[in-house]
Amino acid sequence: MTNLEIFNPISTELELVEQELITSIDTEIPVLDQAATHLIRAGGKRLRPAFTLLAAKLFNNSVQHAIPLAVALELIHMASLVHDDVIDNSELRRGQPTVKSKWGNRLSIYTGNYILARSLCLVAPYQRSDVLDVLADTSMRICEGEIKQMLSCYNIHQGLKDYLRRIERKTALLISVSCQLGAMISPATKAQVLALKRYGYHLGMAFQITDDILDFVADEEILGKPVGSDIRQGVITLPAIYALRCGSQREQLGRLLSSPDLCLSQAEEIVNLINESDGIDYAYYISNRFAEKARQQLDFLPDMLGKNSLYEIADFISGREY
Amino acid sequence: MTNLEIFNPISTELELVEQELITSIDTEIPVLDQAATHLIRAGGKRLRPAFTLLAAKLFNNSVQHAIPLAVALELIHMASLVHDDVIDNSELRRGQPTVKSKWGNRLSIYTGNYILARSLCLVAPYQRSDVLDVLADTSMRICEGEIKQMLSCYNIHQGLKDYLRRIERKTALLISVSCQLGAMISPATKAQVLALKRYGYHLGMAFQITDDILDFVADEEILGKPVGSDIRQGVITLPAIYALRCGSQREQLGRLLSSPDLCLSQAEEIVNLINESDGIDYAYYISNRFAEKARQQLDFLPDMLGKNSLYEIADFISGREY
Repeated sequence: MTNLEIFNPISTELELVEQELITSIDTEIPVLDQAATHLIRAGGKRLRPAFTLLAAKLFNNSVQHAIPLAVALELIHMASLVHDDVIDNSELRRGQPTVKSKWGNRLSIYTGNYILARSLCLVAPYQRSDVLDVLADTSMRICEGEIKQMLSCYNIHQGLKDYLRRIERKTALLISVSCQLGAMISPATKAQVLALKRYGYHLGMAFQITDDILDFVADEEILGKPVGSDIRQGVITLPAIYALRCGSQREQLGRLLSSPDLCLSQAEEIVNLINESDGIDYAYYISNRFAEKARQQLDFLPDMLGKNSLYEIADFISGREY
Repeated sequence: MTNLEIFNPISTELELVEQELITSIDTEIPVLDQAATHLIRAGGKRLRPAFTLLAAKLFNNSVQHAIPLAVALELIHMASLVHDDVIDNSELRRGQPTVKSKWGNRLSIYTGNYILARSLCLVAPYQRSDVLDVLADTSMRICEGEIKQMLSCYNIHQGLKDYLRRIERKTALLISVSCQLGAMISPATKAQVLALKRYGYHLGMAFQITDDILDFVADEEILGKPVGSDIRQGVITLPAIYALRCGSQREQLGRLLSSPDLCLSQAEEIVNLINESDGIDYAYYISNRFAEKARQQLDFLPDMLGKNSLYEIADFISGREY
């Protein structure tokens, strides 16, 4: 099953999201228009809009009303990506040159700010202060997660808990909010909103863990960026944390991972050492536990068309190819 | 007359704004807390909150309800400053080391994003989508202005119009919005809201022009950064635009101002050439015209305590020491 098939029940609406993303860039400054449009056209899984639409579909036949919100969530996500590429000095994302590599750091910072402001324009007409409050709070927490990641680079003493709190803020919160808000703007009960929020949270955790696994095992072509990118930047993810604790070569690995120079020059060796430990299997096990917890939340939800997709997404993430 | 005296009618509320600015930083991450608190404690004129409070005071005896909004406007302003310091590579602002110089570019970007998100948390409880809409739109326009400034560096062919459009977005819009929103959350008529919006716009234009003049004529001690900072960065402001058109040494000036290297190495010479033209007087004349237009808008407003302050601010900007 591909991404595309999972999203079949909302494929028409996702098309509209795609169009709205492009038309949401409305500026008279050509270089800003080019940079923002490049960012949007570079694609992405549009996971966050998809979750908003699927959540809304549980409670409405039509999810037209959720489209601006879905677009806003993708814009918030993209604004954080374009700033991350400045921070990480990344040249490629999804196989495309980053805004940073094409237009430089300064324009990237402003492009991120512009896109974030644009997302708020889309949220305003809902006249829902609770929606704004959730988004504002989440944006703060995402910043905190990004700073945590920055500070934890090359730190070989971090544990499972540190890692989980970091990816919670970096990824799970916005996916959780995407599900939650789709329900909040629909005729859902409080318990149903909460179930969707929790579903999204656990799914987001599972998603980020498998994403981190991919950095060790995927083809560069599939990944859209070089394998071992995290390692090169000193970002220590779950397979590495396991290997640092339990791998047979943990001392050597610790020496390598704590050195920015060695992370760059010996990235391949580090990836091999982690692959030789059971770190990947362990990360997969943890990811599956989160996906299972996500599935459990679905029992609280009505049996509508979208519900099956939500199960399938959890299954898809559990069985993600690597 | 000092800033302090102008703001006497709202001095108590400005104290509360100051406290709220500090308590608005609520994060468990020490370095983010330190950076954001440093940014806030580094001070500033708190012009935007003052305008919001004065505008609200025209229509209410108590302006308690305007304090969160006033804080939000200062946070939005600060978020743009902290990103600007990354873009401009600035070491000093208001005589204090910048967040960028103390904590680096990466943390500065996230601190800006965090503060911006925090401002939205303060806006949400008003439950006013029109307020959010104005803020979101303004944030987009500010980004555009910043990009315009970036693109116009070292361009000696820009005219008065280019300059005015740039400072409109960079400064006037947020001051305009500070006045407008203070009225919008108060029992003001549409015409009164519009008058305050226009007052703030014209005043913001006057303010930025005098600020640009100060870069040529103020003491480094008063300015809190070296004289000629704009010139060193290739930012061509109104006195320079005049001198490039009408100064007796315009050809030499054009050669200098179009070269990034010469802007750095010959900044003092450039400042002297501009001071020797009538560029400063011309800029002062244009600034005064804007201040006068600001004053005219006050006729549409009720005769409350705050109105006199609004007149005095316009006078203060006209007569700003330089």
